[in-house]
Amino acid sequence: MPKKYVDLETLKYILYDIHKIENLLFRERFQEHDMESLDLFINSVKEFSDRELYPYLKEMDETPAYHKDGTVIVHKQVKKVMEKSGEMGIIAACFDYEDGGLQIPISVFQAALYIMDAANNHLPGYPSLTLGSAELIVEFGSDALKETYVPNMLAGTWSGTMCLTEPQAGSSLSDIVTKATPTNEGFYKITGQKIFISGGDHQFSENFVHLVLARIEGAPKGTKGISLFVVPKHRPKEDGTLEYNDVMTVADFQKMGQRGYCTTHLGFGDNDDCRGWLVGEEHKGLAQMFLMMNGARIAVGRGAAAIAMAAYRTSLQYANERPQGRKLTADGKKNPTEKQSLIIEHPDVRRMLLLQKSIAEGSLSLILLASKYHDILTTATSKEEKEKYNLLLEMIIPIVKTYPTEAGIVSVNNGLQVLGGYGFCTDFSLQQYYRDIRIMALYEGTTGIQSQDLLGRKVPMQNGKGLELLVAEITNTILAASKDDELKKYADVLGGKLKLSQKVLSHLMPFAMKGNYERYLADANLFMEYMSIVVLGWLWLEMSVDAKKELNNADKKYSETFYESKIHTMKFYFKYEIPKTNALAESLMNTEVVTIKKDKEYIL
Amino acid sequence: MPKKYVDLETLKYILYDIHKIENLLFRERFQEHDMESLDLFINSVKEFSDRELYPYLKEMDETPAYHKDGTVIVHKQVKKVMEKSGEMGIIAACFDYEDGGLQIPISVFQAALYIMDAANNHLPGYPSLTLGSAELIVEFGSDALKETYVPNMLAGTWSGTMCLTEPQAGSSLSDIVTKATPTNEGFYKITGQKIFISGGDHQFSENFVHLVLARIEGAPKGTKGISLFVVPKHRPKEDGTLEYNDVMTVADFQKMGQRGYCTTHLGFGDNDDCRGWLVGEEHKGLAQMFLMMNGARIAVGRGAAAIAMAAYRTSLQYANERPQGRKLTADGKKNPTEKQSLIIEHPDVRRMLLLQKSIAEGSLSLILLASKYHDILTTATSKEEKEKYNLLLEMIIPIVKTYPTEAGIVSVNNGLQVLGGYGFCTDFSLQQYYRDIRIMALYEGTTGIQSQDLLGRKVPMQNGKGLELLVAEITNTILAASKDDELKKYADVLGGKLKLSQKVLSHLMPFAMKGNYERYLADANLFMEYMSIVVLGWLWLEMSVDAKKELNNADKKYSETFYESKIHTMKFYFKYEIPKTNALAESLMNTEVVTIKKDKEYIL
Repeated sequence: MPKKYVDLETLKYILYDIHKIENLLFRERFQEHDMESLDLFINSVKEFSDRELYPYLKEMDETPAYHKDGTVIVHKQVKKVMEKSGEMGIIAACFDYEDGGLQIPISVFQAALYIMDAANNHLPGYPSLTLGSAELIVEFGSDALKETYVPNMLAGTWSGTMCLTEPQAGSSLSDIVTKATPTNEGFYKITGQKIFISGGDHQFSENFVHLVLARIEGAPKGTKGISLFVVPKHRPKEDGTLEYNDVMTVADFQKMGQRGYCTTHLGFGDNDDCRGWLVGEEHKGLAQMFLMMNGARIAVGRGAAAIAMAAYRTSLQYANERPQGRKLTADGKKNPTEKQSLIIEHPDVRRMLLLQKSIAEGSLSLILLASKYHDILTTATSKEEKEKYNLLLEMIIPIVKTYPTEAGIVSVNNGLQVLGGYGFCTDFSLQQYYRDIRIMALYEGTTGIQSQDLLGRKVPMQNGKGLELLVAEITNTILAASKDDELKKYADVLGGKLKLSQKVLSHLMPFAMKGNYERYLADANLFMEYMSIVVLGWLWLEMSVDAKKELNNADKKYSETFYESKIHTMKFYFKYEIPKTNALAESLMNTEVVTIKKDKEYIL
Repeated sequence: MPKKYVDLETLKYILYDIHKIENLLFRERFQEHDMESLDLFINSVKEFSDRELYPYLKEMDETPAYHKDGTVIVHKQVKKVMEKSGEMGIIAACFDYEDGGLQIPISVFQAALYIMDAANNHLPGYPSLTLGSAELIVEFGSDALKETYVPNMLAGTWSGTMCLTEPQAGSSLSDIVTKATPTNEGFYKITGQKIFISGGDHQFSENFVHLVLARIEGAPKGTKGISLFVVPKHRPKEDGTLEYNDVMTVADFQKMGQRGYCTTHLGFGDNDDCRGWLVGEEHKGLAQMFLMMNGARIAVGRGAAAIAMAAYRTSLQYANERPQGRKLTADGKKNPTEKQSLIIEHPDVRRMLLLQKSIAEGSLSLILLASKYHDILTTATSKEEKEKYNLLLEMIIPIVKTYPTEAGIVSVNNGLQVLGGYGFCTDFSLQQYYRDIRIMALYEGTTGIQSQDLLGRKVPMQNGKGLELLVAEITNTILAASKDDELKKYADVLGGKLKLSQKVLSHLMPFAMKGNYERYLADANLFMEYMSIVVLGWLWLEMSVDAKKELNNADKKYSETFYESKIHTMKFYFKYEIPKTNALAESLMNTEVVTIKKDKEYIL
């Protein structure tokens, strides 16, 4: 395995120098932290990942989780990582001090989890889902629920899960049928089936705390009748002991990738003895769950960005070590007596590596940008600030979920190609990354759903205020870049793309206004791709503005080549990726309707 | 598993009605065949595939080939398929009568093999490589070699392989070092290592006939010093018995996909007792091997096209059966009391299915077009005809190898997405197709190599004559389509893309003329993508011209919807795929140089 699965220098550069998280430390919530302590946190997670995560990447793929005797058997590192994530405060990192947390900025936490994801994407889901469900209990649950469940979850001794999907409903949550029957004893009786439950059961956790969406008897149809429940696998009794709560592990889905991260099928209340406790208000379950969804979607984007990074580091090392072929001479031939080139010297290999780099590092910047918005939002001191960052975050979330996952597939695919036939062989990790990353475009709302969210909800929200704010952010960078002679031309190109996006929206909006939403949203995926490329172009331009400035700084933190490589990658992105927006705009504004079903079925 | 892995109607439509193979039957070579007998051949292969290939697709993935006690253990269907391929004349199909063949047109043979590939891509490689190596022996070998090896190979009792790649050389064949030492006994002593040998060894073949590229001692360096040898695993003695020929099976590569198709590492002459017989002339080995390469490259494109087809049929069936979500109402909401839609009714799912269909069926047309060129070339009666179809075939081969493999990955990727989370689970075949197809962009020359071939060799050959001929073929279709009111606008678009390709070439050519081949070829991959999209647009337009004509035919062979669905898919392709050429042209003509290495290394 290659030595390096993550470029820590670039990670810190983006976190500290580009997104300047130092500015967050003036906020009251973070006043007990300083850059040194945060850097220490990141370094300790890196050291932990080197030792306990990365070495088990291949092994966890080769010994997938499986169902046996009513439980799921997972790799032993799950135990180690859950324990350590408790001890090291990884699970508790962003919680309030009063809830047992460390009040670490979300950006720093996401950077740390990114390292873990890059080291071994089969493991971080276990602590990550645990903290997500604990967060829901803290935010909406009663004090009793908090006291009963949260401390054990933050300590890593109990695991948490999110139970949304059901066999008949898939992404369509309005169709879930899991039933909650009220009793007079303060709890509900739960019956139903949930599938695709990540980390839903295994031999190493004392208990599982499932956050379950269910319908209280008589609730309205659709998403407005869904409530949220805590349903433990074992319910704690008054004396502190645990009693089985009739949550059955029916199966573990066998998958193409991420095979060490179990995906279970759970049955609730087969023996009519499954108790659930309402979290927050009746019928508000979906809204509550979705308040946490931004974090979950950043986490999926982060996982994909991290796999793309690990794959890039692997391809890069291979390309730097593997001799093959020769440079063409002036007559277009090769001289076989000459020494072989390293494959990194071939332009086509360089193109694939730069594509990988631009996607991997660009996605990282995107994740940390969203995390910074998230931090500002949760610590906002004014209504204006809160509103602004809420809109920016809402606006960018579907892109944060989608770009790293979709472009990540392309990136890893190119990385595999760099290795030639070896890329397809299990001796090399590229094929595993290729399989592992594929789930990311499906988790937490598929690309189709994210695209509908972007164009259908986020663009129109508050009469386009979110988009306006995002465009203003991009415009700031364009203005800064325009002052630099070398960067001006890229700034101009990006400005043109913003204008073109307005034209695309002017073409689409009338359909929505006439109530033809099907038509308005039919090509939402293309619009997503368009906006994603623009946003990534912006982030690369932003990095280049900083790099140019630092190159003139006598006292620079990183090497000259480091900064130049960022500018070079921006140039690559503007030559090879940005032009794709023209094709997308052309398709988006083409008036022919071919994907909306009419009377006859032509898809045969 | 879904019932249908291939759309036989479309296959026959493209073979019979679009590429009109009936016209081949006037040629002397095929005079004993008629449409009925050829149709029977195809139907019998379909029936065979239904029974002996398709049912084992999942099983072969789950029980991969493996190395044990010096041989490779493969699934039992390998035995069945080799035997039957012999009995049914699949291996011998295109050979001359005098060599024991059936003189079936290559187009019909490729159509048959396509069915087998779609049914189970792990199996057809075994007979396919056997016939490829038998072809080399027939074409270049002595009568003695022919008599000794070919009958057993065509009968399927002996297997054939192609041994090109070596660990240190990869795609760079000029660096192969396998050594052939002359003796006075009519054979050479062979020593060396070959890797990535498909079907290189298994328990079910009496013997393996390896066609090995090696260097005769003292041969010139580079590709001009490579000779071709027959190196059997067991050498036939005078008395007809077999004697071990010191060919050792060192290992079997474990792969992400196509796991039932073994990929071996062979060692020749470890005990100094490995004999090889020269095929054809000394030092002409590579040229000889490459005469067969067109067939091999069509075969790889065919395999990818077939997997894309099987994946499409699977996604389509799922989309037609799976209810989920609802149509948006006029206020942009969904009504939860309404019945769920089938997912095929959602525009975004339709977009993905149409993308799959356009790639899968378009690739099929491309494969059969190349096969038709191949047929005409091998049966050409005049020098002009031979030259024309040689150039057309040479021109289109890199596209035939590349488009189905690269677009096929995209196609299957979209197919997996259609199934949502289930697409990632091993209970459904999409994830297997996703893994299986990934090898195709690496086999027989990677996409990078094909692209260099297209722009570096094929475009300039005979001063651009090949390209000129291809453009003339495309122009014929444009002219035909222009006469139809509905098709005229697509014809105009395609004509514009041809013009734009000229502009791109005018931009690139000066670099070649100035001897700057590295710059000329740096973006060959983008040029490949450009030309591929144009060619596919042409093939879809060609199908539409026929479909339009047939729609006015009272006595049509297929249903109205069948023809309309082809026109509809063409419209999809022109809306969503053709515009990509603009982005590609923009990148290709961008003067910024970012992928050619200069002094400093910026890829960090």
